[in-house]
Amino acid sequence: MKTTSFLETVLNYSAVFLDSYGVLKNHKGVIPNIQYTLDFLRRENIAIRVLTNDASRNPALLAKRFHNQGVMGIKEEEIVTSGIMAKQYLENKIKKGKVAYLGTKRSADYIIKANVEAIPLKEITEDDYDNIKAMVFLDDEGFDWQRDINKTVNLLRHTNIPSIVANSDKIYPVANNDVSVATGGIAQLVESILGREFIHFGKPDSQMFMYAFEQLNESDNYNRSDILMVGDTLHTDILGGNKFGLDTALVFTGNTSRENAEMLIQSKGIIPNYICNSIVS
Amino acid sequence: MKTTSFLETVLNYSAVFLDSYGVLKNHKGVIPNIQYTLDFLRRENIAIRVLTNDASRNPALLAKRFHNQGVMGIKEEEIVTSGIMAKQYLENKIKKGKVAYLGTKRSADYIIKANVEAIPLKEITEDDYDNIKAMVFLDDEGFDWQRDINKTVNLLRHTNIPSIVANSDKIYPVANNDVSVATGGIAQLVESILGREFIHFGKPDSQMFMYAFEQLNESDNYNRSDILMVGDTLHTDILGGNKFGLDTALVFTGNTSRENAEMLIQSKGIIPNYICNSIVS
Amino acid sequence: MKTTSFLETVLNYSAVFLDSYGVLKNHKGVIPNIQYTLDFLRRENIAIRVLTNDASRNPALLAKRFHNQGVMGIKEEEIVTSGIMAKQYLENKIKKGKVAYLGTKRSADYIIKANVEAIPLKEITEDDYDNIKAMVFLDDEGFDWQRDINKTVNLLRHTNIPSIVANSDKIYPVANNDVSVATGGIAQLVESILGREFIHFGKPDSQMFMYAFEQLNESDNYNRSDILMVGDTLHTDILGGNKFGLDTALVFTGNTSRENAEMLIQSKGIIPNYICNSIVS
Amino acid sequence: MKTTSFLETVLNYSAVFLDSYGVLKNHKGVIPNIQYTLDFLRRENIAIRVLTNDASRNPALLAKRFHNQGVMGIKEEEIVTSGIMAKQYLENKIKKGKVAYLGTKRSADYIIKANVEAIPLKEITEDDYDNIKAMVFLDDEGFDWQRDINKTVNLLRHTNIPSIVANSDKIYPVANNDVSVATGGIAQLVESILGREFIHFGKPDSQMFMYAFEQLNESDNYNRSDILMVGDTLHTDILGGNKFGLDTALVFTGNTSRENAEMLIQSKGIIPNYICNSIVS
Repeated sequence: MKTTSFLETVLNYSAVFLDSYGVLKNHKGVIPNIQYTLDFLRRENIAIRVLTNDASRNPALLAKRFHNQGVMGIKEEEIVTSGIMAKQYLENKIKKGKVAYLGTKRSADYIIKANVEAIPLKEITEDDYDNIKAMVFLDDEGFDWQRDINKTVNLLRHTNIPSIVANSDKIYPVANNDVSVATGGIAQLVESILGREFIHFGKPDSQMFMYAFEQLNESDNYNRSDILMVGDTLHTDILGGNKFGLDTALVFTGNTSRENAEMLIQSKGIIPNYICNSIVS
Repeated sequence: MKTTSFLETVLNYSAVFLDSYGVLKNHKGVIPNIQYTLDFLRRENIAIRVLTNDASRNPALLAKRFHNQGVMGIKEEEIVTSGIMAKQYLENKIKKGKVAYLGTKRSADYIIKANVEAIPLKEITEDDYDNIKAMVFLDDEGFDWQRDINKTVNLLRHTNIPSIVANSDKIYPVANNDVSVATGGIAQLVESILGREFIHFGKPDSQMFMYAFEQLNESDNYNRSDILMVGDTLHTDILGGNKFGLDTALVFTGNTSRENAEMLIQSKGIIPNYICNSIVS
Repeated sequence: MKTTSFLETVLNYSAVFLDSYGVLKNHKGVIPNIQYTLDFLRRENIAIRVLTNDASRNPALLAKRFHNQGVMGIKEEEIVTSGIMAKQYLENKIKKGKVAYLGTKRSADYIIKANVEAIPLKEITEDDYDNIKAMVFLDDEGFDWQRDINKTVNLLRHTNIPSIVANSDKIYPVANNDVSVATGGIAQLVESILGREFIHFGKPDSQMFMYAFEQLNESDNYNRSDILMVGDTLHTDILGGNKFGLDTALVFTGNTSRENAEMLIQSKGIIPNYICNSIVS
Repeated sequence: MKTTSFLETVLNYSAVFLDSYGVLKNHKGVIPNIQYTLDFLRRENIAIRVLTNDASRNPALLAKRFHNQGVMGIKEEEIVTSGIMAKQYLENKIKKGKVAYLGTKRSADYIIKANVEAIPLKEITEDDYDNIKAMVFLDDEGFDWQRDINKTVNLLRHTNIPSIVANSDKIYPVANNDVSVATGGIAQLVESILGREFIHFGKPDSQMFMYAFEQLNESDNYNRSDILMVGDTLHTDILGGNKFGLDTALVFTGNTSRENAEMLIQSKGIIPNYICNSIVS
């Protein structure tokens, strides 16, 4: 598997879309020397957007977290989350009533910012059913799985409301070789039990790419061919970038290892333009 | 939807297979006047077997529970559970090592009776991985869903062992119109995350029917045409009975209501021989 | 189910995205009086784009076909097909070699326009395997299903290439209440046999909406809130429009009837802003 | 991967269940020296049953075919097909009307033997709809896929009848490394389009094992522990044998090769008791 230098490759582009988990950091923490790359990109005037399937925190908190972990200079407005996509959907479609959610109180910020009232599953009683206008799967933390997944199933059996999955990832890595079931996995359990398909947000869907692309073009003028999408996961980052018409680079600092990259690329038929060890060299 | 009297219909048979939940009892408790039917069946010398997708308790405990709830005269050996099928599988295939499980301590009796050591997921550490020879989904109670479902996912990612679903039901009713996610639902979440298919036990599979049929024929001589299968659920009780070659009767005391029976029968193409209000008239 | 006048509603918008089949025509032919609506939209200076999940013909042929059927004034550049999305993908990702396809010769125009050589499945021999760089599902017509679906399965078992579904619809209506299996259905059969997921194009994915939106904005200045998406199918037209942030109108001239609209909207949780009998009143 | 001699192993059993395709023959024809094994089994008084997922021919024709291919001495009554299971189902459940089928005329023998009238899809018109009481998927040959799969979809949309899949295999091997889509694959396409689940017959379901077991016990007395199931496919032959409580042997003359056996056994968690190169040594 021939790899390319990211730092050389990226000089052919004037903007770069970076996945967060697996590219900037992973289960071991921040990727070593990542600050060098970020400084390099700034120096070369290459615009940065971070595209992350995440609805657990809003961009301001994510920016702060990068800062606290020693990744300097990523601004709130440079972070595009799948939570923002869900927020926009709610904003457009839900004009009154309450929106039920699974997740932490912090994640509910995406509902509140859409100007609707957020109510966690645990607080819902049958009396609320009539007044609940949508259900959002935000985070796998912040609730009792057994009690609140069962409550979600029953809420959705008794009311017919849009159900929104603000992060479709089914798992996320938590430690060396271990994973946790993510929001998308919990949503899929409920979908399978109800025999319904929910409304999903996040890569590989084009929305996040489009949002970042449009926002980038507010201040300057970029074509798709000016942008390189970088990610560690074929079926979200690379497929999404490919479908949106961007050049794509796969890195080995997350889900995909050097050992299984070729096999995965071939068996899935999802082909990155470049393969790089990481974004630090 | 024309219904038939169960008490008249059953006189054409010399044995009856009864589903438990939805036929003998439901979320409101024991079906009123059920004792009359049981006494009637005994008086008419019609053999009884209870076939239940359940691995939470062994037949002895289930028999005791019937007794405590006022349903008299159902003997341990008349109860056939999907847990027994799982137990037999373990007995045949797992000769040494430990078997991990999700469920209550009580449900683990099915593993212990198979002469292997049972270890609950919560007690497993990475050091145990090498010594665990199978994983069994027994019950949706008795563990912390978030912690132990995640532990199950990681156990099965790191070891390659048979995974057995001792009760394939995805939901079960808990109160008027409310349900809980059952063992089969939890197993399916893990299957979907791992992209694997587990080994499933329970109706509509033929094993439980066969087990009950063979056991019935140990003491006496029955043909399939002598037996009526009675259940409240089309895709487990009725499909299973139909495929095993039994006549089948659908009742309205559980999952299927008089209102939606015709629609469900037609849309699924699963056709019972008889439709009865309940087994009490 | 309260309905709204389309002609009154559309006056609040400066552009309209119309699905083709089920909105402009259906299995009975062109919707009666559709020309009145088109003329009305032109007169009111409301921009028109036709968004259709179709890879059987290029926009020029589709425009001609509208003309031949008596629907006047729909221009080639106003038609956005899922075939165009597939074409763009091939253009970006396949630089050499041949692209295999299922479909009519006419549909292969989408491959040829992407500057790669198109080869129908029936002409492929094992000697070609090395030189085939992608597989595209274009149309359900133009080949022998038994021979060429089997050839496709074997091509994809022996080579590891991207497989592209240029129209994800599983069925399309052909006569009063009858349907045909569409390209997306055939692709799904092959996906299920191979245990792989292909790259799908077409509504509800955002690409077609984005393409139409960007093209609209080349000559003029439109916001999402200026555009109304009109369709007959909840899970493609309405879901896609909703996710892209457009207002949406459901019509009864295609897949969704007045009788089952409310039930479908509720069971799917996909909610149009307006419900109209058709676009002619 | 340590292998065992089949001829030595089988001496511990008094009956053997053999899969046909992959064990007795494969795409190259009859397995060389198979007659020696059959003669050896007869000499050692080991009862033979052939269990095959096949509804294309009745046991008499399959026996004749073995004979014509030079495999001597396999009797009609020693062959158990999934077609027989479907026949029994029809016999029990369909008392009048016609049964529609996809397959060759020859395969329709399973319907005719169930004492109902068989009608091929191609001959059905809308006038027949009321009189058709079941649909059976028998074979992938004998009809025009495009025309008759579409006719099947429409028949099942307009009538609500049981649909029976007489052979659930999705593919079968046709030449060195090539496969054909089988009946089960075609049925699954129709299931996916209709959103319905059909009634499936064939291994790994227990019926065929039970049928063979009961028939074996008509003349003699066998326990499950007396029987060895031999097959080339983990998820049908070995899983089915394991679930029925038989000892199982995997062979390398069909779907599973020596190279990928260990990986497949581990990733599926389906564990044979023995692994043999073939049944000829």
